[in-house]
Amino acid sequence: MAIGARIERRLDQAVTEAEGPGAPPLLAAALRYAVFPGGHRIRPRLCLSVAEACGAADPEAADAAAAAIELLHCASLVHDDLPCFDDANLRRGKASVHCEYGVPIAVLTGDALIVLAFETLTNGTVRSPSCLASLTAIIAGAVGSPRGIVAGQAWECEAAVSLSDYQRAKTGALFVAATAAGAAAAGVNAKPWGVLGAKLGEAYQVADDLRDVLCDEAELGKPIDQDAARFRPNAAARLGVDGAKARLATLIGEAMESIPACPGAEELRAIIKRQTLQFLPERFARAAA
Amino acid sequence: MAIGARIERRLDQAVTEAEGPGAPPLLAAALRYAVFPGGHRIRPRLCLSVAEACGAADPEAADAAAAAIELLHCASLVHDDLPCFDDANLRRGKASVHCEYGVPIAVLTGDALIVLAFETLTNGTVRSPSCLASLTAIIAGAVGSPRGIVAGQAWECEAAVSLSDYQRAKTGALFVAATAAGAAAAGVNAKPWGVLGAKLGEAYQVADDLRDVLCDEAELGKPIDQDAARFRPNAAARLGVDGAKARLATLIGEAMESIPACPGAEELRAIIKRQTLQFLPERFARAAA
Repeated sequence: MAIGARIERRLDQAVTEAEGPGAPPLLAAALRYAVFPGGHRIRPRLCLSVAEACGAADPEAADAAAAAIELLHCASLVHDDLPCFDDANLRRGKASVHCEYGVPIAVLTGDALIVLAFETLTNGTVRSPSCLASLTAIIAGAVGSPRGIVAGQAWECEAAVSLSDYQRAKTGALFVAATAAGAAAAGVNAKPWGVLGAKLGEAYQVADDLRDVLCDEAELGKPIDQDAARFRPNAAARLGVDGAKARLATLIGEAMESIPACPGAEELRAIIKRQTLQFLPERFARAAA
Repeated sequence: MAIGARIERRLDQAVTEAEGPGAPPLLAAALRYAVFPGGHRIRPRLCLSVAEACGAADPEAADAAAAAIELLHCASLVHDDLPCFDDANLRRGKASVHCEYGVPIAVLTGDALIVLAFETLTNGTVRSPSCLASLTAIIAGAVGSPRGIVAGQAWECEAAVSLSDYQRAKTGALFVAATAAGAAAAGVNAKPWGVLGAKLGEAYQVADDLRDVLCDEAELGKPIDQDAARFRPNAAARLGVDGAKARLATLIGEAMESIPACPGAEELRAIIKRQTLQFLPERFARAAA
């Protein structure tokens, strides 16, 4: 089964469990709404691609790791969109969760997705229980405090922000977790795989900054010009559009070079090349490639 | 070491990790503020008492399970107090987290505490890795959707509420998890221990309803008369104060009788008797005992 289909199937399985008998109807509906339809599923694709490249013996563990990472990403989108943060009314081209279901259900949807991610890891490692501890440690570390995406979001509440701490936590951490968890799910030492995730995370951040400046709202599926409106650092504003595109190309090159020796290294490079082309809409991607 | 001291030590260890290098200062401060000083720590005490009664071989796993349960309880208090839910300005006798640190940090504090709970389980089961899957399943099931405390809170957003589903999820689930996780951490079949948690959870709910009606704000450390103000079901309103006290005594009796055979059953009964006396302030407890 293709990687994309495996991700959707595992996410559907997880959400179906959360919607099970006894679930409050609004929460159940909001959970599905927050996860489907998805975006590019970049992080879980990266996780599964690494697991495959490492020769994953237990695809179930890899699928669970990929789904857990995407559930946590969805949770962070739901909470980041709340009125107390970005107050965004649009996400993935439709009303954000709090606009559709109200703020209370949106808070609980994020909470439930976080819990569901750790349940998914547990359910997916029945055949390889020794993976569970390493996967939970890798993924929890990328989400919580001190250095995960929750901490990254909390930097926005500080008067003085360390830009590198902020971006590494807000965006980089979950990319690092995606590559490390892919390796761990394949029973391979996760540590050397972190560089690939870190470089791709930084590249994704630069591409996101470019999209914020270059795209319109319909293309982006979420509000534009948010960085300027919120005084957030933006690579395109700092380096200029051409400078940011050059930086993006450099980071993708460094990511490719960082890939540790593994059975499927060549195919992984090809996959990452295709995936990173999707970081920007087609008309911009060519110039950055 | 006494159970209370073990709980505080393990919670401190967990929060210290979350406050570690790179943590945003406000989030780090809010995490500690949300966990310390605690309330009666009823759930983790119950968890550790059961683990001890079952003859826990690895106290580290039991401590981690107890701390994880309390971290999740603290997370739920922080989120439940938010303006979009109870809008409570007082908790455990001091300003609630969002009043002290603002709504954005309060949302993130809850999120980070949920993640920290699962990290704590992982860190605490290094010596008994086979416990990790069962503890995570038990505890995640008591927190997420469809039947955990997040689902319980989401029932408050529904027009038609199933009272038993609501109370079982909102209060009962984490008590059931406390007894089941205590048994699982001791390597004992968790299932028969669920009844004790369910009965104590129901008893705690009745006591909470009585406190809401009988106590003043200073004694309670949180706003009073919240059930009437929010049209929530309240056992004291439904059964009368004396009826609710009688129901409380019955539930505690049933809890005692449900305790499965185990090496420390007698001592566990004595501990539960002492703990349930604290469900109500002393001047009411005597009448219910």
